[in-house]
Amino acid sequence: MSLVRVHNFTISLDGFGTGEGQSLEAPFGHAGHRLMAWAFPTRTFRGMGMHGEGEASFGVDESFASQWATGIGVEIMGRNKFGPQRGPWQDEEWKGWWGDDPVFHTPVVVLTHHPRPVLEMEGGTTFHFVDADPAAALEQARALAGDLDVRIGGGVETVRQFLEADLIDHLHVVVAPIVLGRGERLWDGLEGLEERFEIEATPSPSGVVHLILTRKPR
Amino acid sequence: MSLVRVHNFTISLDGFGTGEGQSLEAPFGHAGHRLMAWAFPTRTFRGMGMHGEGEASFGVDESFASQWATGIGVEIMGRNKFGPQRGPWQDEEWKGWWGDDPVFHTPVVVLTHHPRPVLEMEGGTTFHFVDADPAAALEQARALAGDLDVRIGGGVETVRQFLEADLIDHLHVVVAPIVLGRGERLWDGLEGLEERFEIEATPSPSGVVHLILTRKPR
Repeated sequence: MSLVRVHNFTISLDGFGTGEGQSLEAPFGHAGHRLMAWAFPTRTFRGMGMHGEGEASFGVDESFASQWATGIGVEIMGRNKFGPQRGPWQDEEWKGWWGDDPVFHTPVVVLTHHPRPVLEMEGGTTFHFVDADPAAALEQARALAGDLDVRIGGGVETVRQFLEADLIDHLHVVVAPIVLGRGERLWDGLEGLEERFEIEATPSPSGVVHLILTRKPR
Repeated sequence: MSLVRVHNFTISLDGFGTGEGQSLEAPFGHAGHRLMAWAFPTRTFRGMGMHGEGEASFGVDESFASQWATGIGVEIMGRNKFGPQRGPWQDEEWKGWWGDDPVFHTPVVVLTHHPRPVLEMEGGTTFHFVDADPAAALEQARALAGDLDVRIGGGVETVRQFLEADLIDHLHVVVAPIVLGRGERLWDGLEGLEERFEIEATPSPSGVVHLILTRKPR
């Protein structure tokens, strides 16, 4: 069976995966660029169009970052990762935060209570808008992925729901050395999670700590 | 000026420094022994009377743990670290969780709204019960410490108050690979703490990550 994986999902020391006050201009709210700052210099994120100064990095951050796409056949994302709109779609012309040629290059299942037609983008990305619980959404995603793995792309609520439903096999969490104070917490409602996962920690000179949580055999 | 230091202060992945439901028998509430489990095999904690199987460890956990007493002239602790009683003292005969010969071997300032006479214990530990805010308590502690450093011993609320008051120079936080779900959070109210501290992370084969926060020059 293909794996369900999370990559490059970054939280603050106090466990927030996004700040407060998300908007079109501020996808991470008051956190700004602080959560993902570790990733911007990596070759992988540069390749996704992140601007930066100096050479792209090939260190431990890049080693982890680069794994996000390998063997992935589909992404599942929450609606908030597609765009900041809430409720019924007001403007179906706006095609999300990801531009005409999104970085995914695979089918993407967008979880929403307001389905709309499939959006075909350049470069192989297709957005499928699905109203389903995690298990049913995963089933639909697997049908789109062939034999490849499924990535849970976030945001916080989406990763948390899939963890609660015990559907995640591989979870890469990056702990950034910042205290956000407010926003959405990843670990809420997941008491005892360590009983289900092996946990390995690797620090980076950039200041973050990479945590790899690997589901124990069932 | 002597430093104000915190050592071996352990939190869960979700930031809790103690669980819910503290009592005489369960100083960490529902967390039980899970937070401090990394420390029990170390030579330092064995030396404090922790029982355990096998040889005491000399690895990275011991390297960090062993620094707690070096150069320390006094500890400041919250009342909850002295004992689980709340409100006016009901039983002054009971001399706290730490036995006749407490591990501190220095003066200890116990923060409480209910002062009582100094308690002289065996081995050089004296408990001084003080009703004061962090800055005033620190002043009294320094008077007891001579030229030596001051350790803030916890619990969560005490460390947090001293961080809020920006009185801590060196903070050793250990992140245990567990999700507690409930209890007292260390980082609450400390948004932006990283602006005041350099942060270094070191993982241990035991599964914990040692964070050293060093106050930037003022």
